[in-house]
Amino acid sequence: MGEHTVSSFDEELKNIDRLIRDMGSLAGSMVESAIRALLTSDTAMAQTVISEDLVMDARQRALDEQAITLIARRQPMAQDLRAVLGAIRMAGDLERIGDLAKNIAKRVGAVGPAAPKDLSHSIDAMSKLVLEQVYGVIELYVGRQAEGLKMLRMDDQKIDVKYTSVFRELLTYMMEDPRNITACTHLLFCAKNLERIGDHVTNIAENAYFVVTGTQLPANRPKVDETATSVSAA
Amino acid sequence: MGEHTVSSFDEELKNIDRLIRDMGSLAGSMVESAIRALLTSDTAMAQTVISEDLVMDARQRALDEQAITLIARRQPMAQDLRAVLGAIRMAGDLERIGDLAKNIAKRVGAVGPAAPKDLSHSIDAMSKLVLEQVYGVIELYVGRQAEGLKMLRMDDQKIDVKYTSVFRELLTYMMEDPRNITACTHLLFCAKNLERIGDHVTNIAENAYFVVTGTQLPANRPKVDETATSVSAA
Repeated sequence: MGEHTVSSFDEELKNIDRLIRDMGSLAGSMVESAIRALLTSDTAMAQTVISEDLVMDARQRALDEQAITLIARRQPMAQDLRAVLGAIRMAGDLERIGDLAKNIAKRVGAVGPAAPKDLSHSIDAMSKLVLEQVYGVIELYVGRQAEGLKMLRMDDQKIDVKYTSVFRELLTYMMEDPRNITACTHLLFCAKNLERIGDHVTNIAENAYFVVTGTQLPANRPKVDETATSVSAA
Repeated sequence: MGEHTVSSFDEELKNIDRLIRDMGSLAGSMVESAIRALLTSDTAMAQTVISEDLVMDARQRALDEQAITLIARRQPMAQDLRAVLGAIRMAGDLERIGDLAKNIAKRVGAVGPAAPKDLSHSIDAMSKLVLEQVYGVIELYVGRQAEGLKMLRMDDQKIDVKYTSVFRELLTYMMEDPRNITACTHLLFCAKNLERIGDHVTNIAENAYFVVTGTQLPANRPKVDETATSVSAA
């Protein structure tokens, strides 16, 4: 998207951007509410998050339709097609973030009011990092900040480090008292969902970078789940 | 895709189908090998699965490029565009299945040779259901069997039931002996990955149905993770 010429293709792409921004706000607020519901055992709030997933799905379908219409009407060249495909992919990752928030919300009942203070603190801290990324990536995309998008991709490692420490904490609680096992297992999946949300943000940053610059970020994307290889001795 | 007229658009779509078939075979064999590596503690086989993920990524990129070229050259109407978008989505889900197989393979070292016989048996049975689905959905798509695709979507529930029972078994082992907790936690994620592969097969079936028939399957897609809501009392 050059600064000098604004084609009407770009103008139409801006409509799609608006939908991406809406989906991004909703994704962020779903994650925020899901974690708050989890840490305060608020089943009503959890229910709200679960129902918001339908709104998210509707927005994704709207975006898909607009993208299809844009392509069919404007018949863009390959490079512009890739940009539209990038936007469709971004919407796909945002929809998945909503899904993961919903899955956290669904576990609120199973976890119950059992989470110890320290653990709540760690999960809360992890969710704050994740939320910063969810809101950040959309802001950077809407502001066409290519450099920021490149940097943000690196921040996913902070989430992975946090996840590994929450994972270890949860194992410790389970080993201390078998009565913690069921609740901690559900919390483990919640933490894993947060970590996966971080991965989706990374995908979004990569697609956003492509839409903004027309070039790919190098593929040295940082690794996903540290615990899969590093906790064998824990 | 009508039976009477075969446009060259359809002919070109067949090239994309070939790539989907290749990705499907690879996805299936990655899942198969990952589970075998897990149940026999075969770290060399696990390593092979991990490296195959690069092949999968390359195939997805090839498919994307072919889809973009097809759209740019043929300038299809909205309905045909949706079919191409459906094929791109199918490839995306196949790539995610490869990713999940890789994640299982990465846990082989952390699980170690600890899995008790009964548990191995349950995970093996679950993986067989999943594999049937992975290979099945591609076969049905390539054979343009719309009815079969509709039916297959229902089978995901069998996997969910199996997952719930593996989940309970794993909790039991953890409660019996805290020394099982680390290994069982990794096995829990492996089982969860199998369940998620089932979800991706459901997505593939829905997109395949759309590509084959031009109409959407009704959205009453069966539920994802039973354990999130039903195991609170386990």
